[in-house]
Amino acid sequence: MKTSKTLITSTRNPHIIEARGLRLRKKRDQLGKAYVEGINSTLAAIESGAAIEHLIVCPNLLKSEPVKQLLRNSTLLVLEVTEEVFRSLSKRDGPQGIAAVVRQIWSELESINTGKKDSLWIALDSAADEGNIGSIIRTSEAVSAAGVILVGNTADPYSPLAIKASTGALFYQDLIRCSWDQLVEWARKHAVRIVGTSGSSTIDYRNIDRSAETLVVMGSERAGLSEIQQQQCDLVVSIPMNGKVDSLNVSSAATLLLYELSSS
Amino acid sequence: MKTSKTLITSTRNPHIIEARGLRLRKKRDQLGKAYVEGINSTLAAIESGAAIEHLIVCPNLLKSEPVKQLLRNSTLLVLEVTEEVFRSLSKRDGPQGIAAVVRQIWSELESINTGKKDSLWIALDSAADEGNIGSIIRTSEAVSAAGVILVGNTADPYSPLAIKASTGALFYQDLIRCSWDQLVEWARKHAVRIVGTSGSSTIDYRNIDRSAETLVVMGSERAGLSEIQQQQCDLVVSIPMNGKVDSLNVSSAATLLLYELSSS
Repeated sequence: MKTSKTLITSTRNPHIIEARGLRLRKKRDQLGKAYVEGINSTLAAIESGAAIEHLIVCPNLLKSEPVKQLLRNSTLLVLEVTEEVFRSLSKRDGPQGIAAVVRQIWSELESINTGKKDSLWIALDSAADEGNIGSIIRTSEAVSAAGVILVGNTADPYSPLAIKASTGALFYQDLIRCSWDQLVEWARKHAVRIVGTSGSSTIDYRNIDRSAETLVVMGSERAGLSEIQQQQCDLVVSIPMNGKVDSLNVSSAATLLLYELSSS
Repeated sequence: MKTSKTLITSTRNPHIIEARGLRLRKKRDQLGKAYVEGINSTLAAIESGAAIEHLIVCPNLLKSEPVKQLLRNSTLLVLEVTEEVFRSLSKRDGPQGIAAVVRQIWSELESINTGKKDSLWIALDSAADEGNIGSIIRTSEAVSAAGVILVGNTADPYSPLAIKASTGALFYQDLIRCSWDQLVEWARKHAVRIVGTSGSSTIDYRNIDRSAETLVVMGSERAGLSEIQQQQCDLVVSIPMNGKVDSLNVSSAATLLLYELSSS
C-alpha cells in the first residue's frame, strides 16, 4: 500500500476539493473522473481493474478487517483522511470510511465486438433517473449482456447514485455514449436486431425469437420511444398491462426484456 | 367545484403547514394522511376514489386545460393558493400546480379475499427504498396482483417519493401492513403458497408452477430473506445470475417473479 505521507486534515485539500466536486456532473464530464464510495462499490472498482487514481480512506471509520487487509496488500495510492474530512465528502448516513477517485472508462461503438449470435446490448435514450440507470447496468451484468449504451441526453452512469444502484456492476460493463442516429447506423451495419417496446404493440415480449444478436432500446421514463424511433426498430414488443397503469418503471421493463432475451 | 372562499397567500396557513408536515413519515403516521403531488398522481387519486380531504391548486402554475375542466366539474374541496405557497410545499423543479391531501387507506390481512386459484400477492419485508416500493406497487397493479403487503419496518408507501414512483398505482392496490409471523400464519390458514427468492436455490424462477394462489415474499435490499424466512417458504427460487453481481435490484427481482407468476 502506498499511503500519502501525511493524514489529510483539511477539507480544503486539493484532492478533497476535487473529490467533492465530482458530485457534480459538470465536474465529472470536465475531468473525466468519478467519485466512488462505500465498501461494495470501491471493492468492485478495485477487483474489476478500474482506473483508480487514489483511494480515500478514513481509518477511524473503516471497520471492515478484510478490507483493511486488502488495502495493506494493495499497491494503490491511499490518501488517509480524518473523520471530518471524510464526512465532508460523504452524503451517507453511516459512511464506511472508504472511497475512490476513478477515471471514467468509455468504449467506442465501433470497437464493440459483434458477430456472436446471442450477444445482447441495452441502450437507454433520455433516461433521466440515475437510480434506474444504475439498476439497469446491474441487470445487464447479471444477464452477461455485452454493454450498456447511453443515448443522447441520458443521465450520467458515473453519478454517485448510479454507481451505488449498479452495486459496482458499472465497472464490469462496457459503457458507450452515442447519438440515436449513430446507434441505428451501427446496428444496421452489423446486422444487429433493434428491439423496442411500446404499449401499443400487439407482440408480447415473451414471444421474441432469441437467436439473433439483439439491441434492446428503451426510451425515457416519461415518454418512452418516439414514433420515429419505433419505426426504426426491427421489432416492437409490448409488456402486457392488466391494471390501471399503462407502463412499468423503465428499469423493471428493461429487466423483463433482458431476462427474456438472455434465457436459454 | 367547492373552492375555499379566499386564496391562501400565507405559507403559515394551517392547511399548508399540515401538507408540508406530511413530507415526514412521523406526521403521516400520526395523522394517517399523505400529500400527493403532480397531475398524474393527483388524477389517479381522484379517479380511484381515494379519500381526498382537499385538493391544493395554484391557478398560476396549473396549465393543463383538461385538468382545469375536471376540477370545474368536481365536487372536491379545492384550496387555491399563490405560487409562493405552492412552491413552499413542492420539492419539484417544475411544479404542476396541483396536489392533494388524502387519508391513507389500509386493508386488513383478514379481509383479503382468498380462494381464487390464481391470486397473487407480493410482500416486502424491511424494504428501505421508497422508490423501489412505489415501483413494485406499480408492477403489482400492472399484473393485477391482489395486493401489496408491507412487513415489519418496511418504508412508507405513502411517502411522496413512493407515491410518485407508483405513478398512482398505490391508489388502486390493496395495501396491508403486518408482521412476518402474522403473514405466515395468514398464508398457512388460507393455504396460500409462499414463494421466496435466494441466490443459493437451485430452482429457476421460470420453473414455478403457476396454478396456486401465491404470495411472493421479498427481503430487504441489503440482506434478502433470512434463513428462517426461507425455511418458512413453501418454495424458494433463484433468478439466474451470470455476471459479477449476485443479486438484482429488489424491484427488478419482484417484477420478474410477478410477471412469471401472472403470465398465462
